Amino acid sequence: MKQIRMIDIKQQILSDNDNLANEIRDTLKENDVFMVNIMSSPGAGKTTLLLETIRRLKNEMRIGVIEGDIESMVDAKKITESGALAVQIRTGGDCHLDAPMVQPAIEMLDLNTVDTLFLENIGNLVCPAEFDTGAMRKVMLLSVPEGDDKVLKYPLMFTVCDALIITKVDCMGMFDFDAETLRKRVKAINPKIKIIMLCSKTGENMDEWINWLKNQREMCLTK
Amino acid sequence: MKQIRMIDIKQQILSDNDNLANEIRDTLKENDVFMVNIMSSPGAGKTTLLLETIRRLKNEMRIGVIEGDIESMVDAKKITESGALAVQIRTGGDCHLDAPMVQPAIEMLDLNTVDTLFLENIGNLVCPAEFDTGAMRKVMLLSVPEGDDKVLKYPLMFTVCDALIITKVDCMGMFDFDAETLRKRVKAINPKIKIIMLCSKTGENMDEWINWLKNQREMCLTK
Repeated sequence: MKQIRMIDIKQQILSDNDNLANEIRDTLKENDVFMVNIMSSPGAGKTTLLLETIRRLKNEMRIGVIEGDIESMVDAKKITESGALAVQIRTGGDCHLDAPMVQPAIEMLDLNTVDTLFLENIGNLVCPAEFDTGAMRKVMLLSVPEGDDKVLKYPLMFTVCDALIITKVDCMGMFDFDAETLRKRVKAINPKIKIIMLCSKTGENMDEWINWLKNQREMCLTK
Repeated sequence: MKQIRMIDIKQQILSDNDNLANEIRDTLKENDVFMVNIMSSPGAGKTTLLLETIRRLKNEMRIGVIEGDIESMVDAKKITESGALAVQIRTGGDCHLDAPMVQPAIEMLDLNTVDTLFLENIGNLVCPAEFDTGAMRKVMLLSVPEGDDKVLKYPLMFTVCDALIITKVDCMGMFDFDAETLRKRVKAINPKIKIIMLCSKTGENMDEWINWLKNQREMCLTK
């Protein structure tokens, strides 16, 4: 009985969330703002990838970052220092970002001052996959040290994302990571996903990521 | 209003969970079984540490592992091949293990055939920290590639655990990881936590972990 009540509430919350996410997406589109939801395990390199992305793109577009964290503002400080706009969401325990958390953060930003907005989600390969935040694209990072078997264990995240960025490829060989095995496993559950292997620190394949982002921005805002 | 309803149900569930967790702990103690809850981000090395722990301990005690996974049974297969008893819990989406999931797994095991039972939780640094599973000790792993700032972002996990095992120390120097900074940050929120830095692959400091486990087993079962 309690179980059924829980499910009803969860469905209601997910449905309210989806409606609000659609409203957020419409508002962003009207204001010509492209929003990307960046998800991964803790420590896979979300902030490092964003800092390098900002460095490469800041002369051609204005970038904003909504930082999701349970506690602390360390990442928001780094983003601000890089020259991008940053807004911090402190969830105070919650394990994911959802549309009701993202909406006030967007209201705090002047959408006329931003072209591309990144949402740095809580480091968690499970719960964030369930929630539409209003972003136009979902991107996940998987770092080489995590291993090539993660798609078997956390399939939903790999299923919902438009792109999989494999990070820290400079330490391939030190860890149990077979890129071809991973690619087959991922494509089996999500054939359309774009897979990019890169290293934010050395810059390897960063161009592929930047070009993908620019193309997606174009596609989402001109449709 | 909906918010309040959610919180009530969450509190009720957490309280039901804690009661069941206490029952599980009593049953284990009556049967002289020591249970340890192992938690970490995805890919921090839980299974690798368990396999090496089983290899070193299997001649002195009988080991069982309850494997928690959202999907797949890859880890349970590895554990069974190592010679330990394994029971798989497939959560089918849930992001953590709780007492109601652990109870049937324990009922499947014959407690007369096990001395130490490990619970390999879902790879998640957030949600598993909230749930008592009936284990006598909580242990978290943090791998060097994840970085030394994780305690600032996911403080609850570092607060509830009895031991923090820093894994993959063989690749210290390749990543932004200052062990002394981490130690200070962790001790500030959990002064009693035992910190062990090791590498399951090279065997570095595995003895310290094994000795800690044996001492804790002794303490928990003789009290």
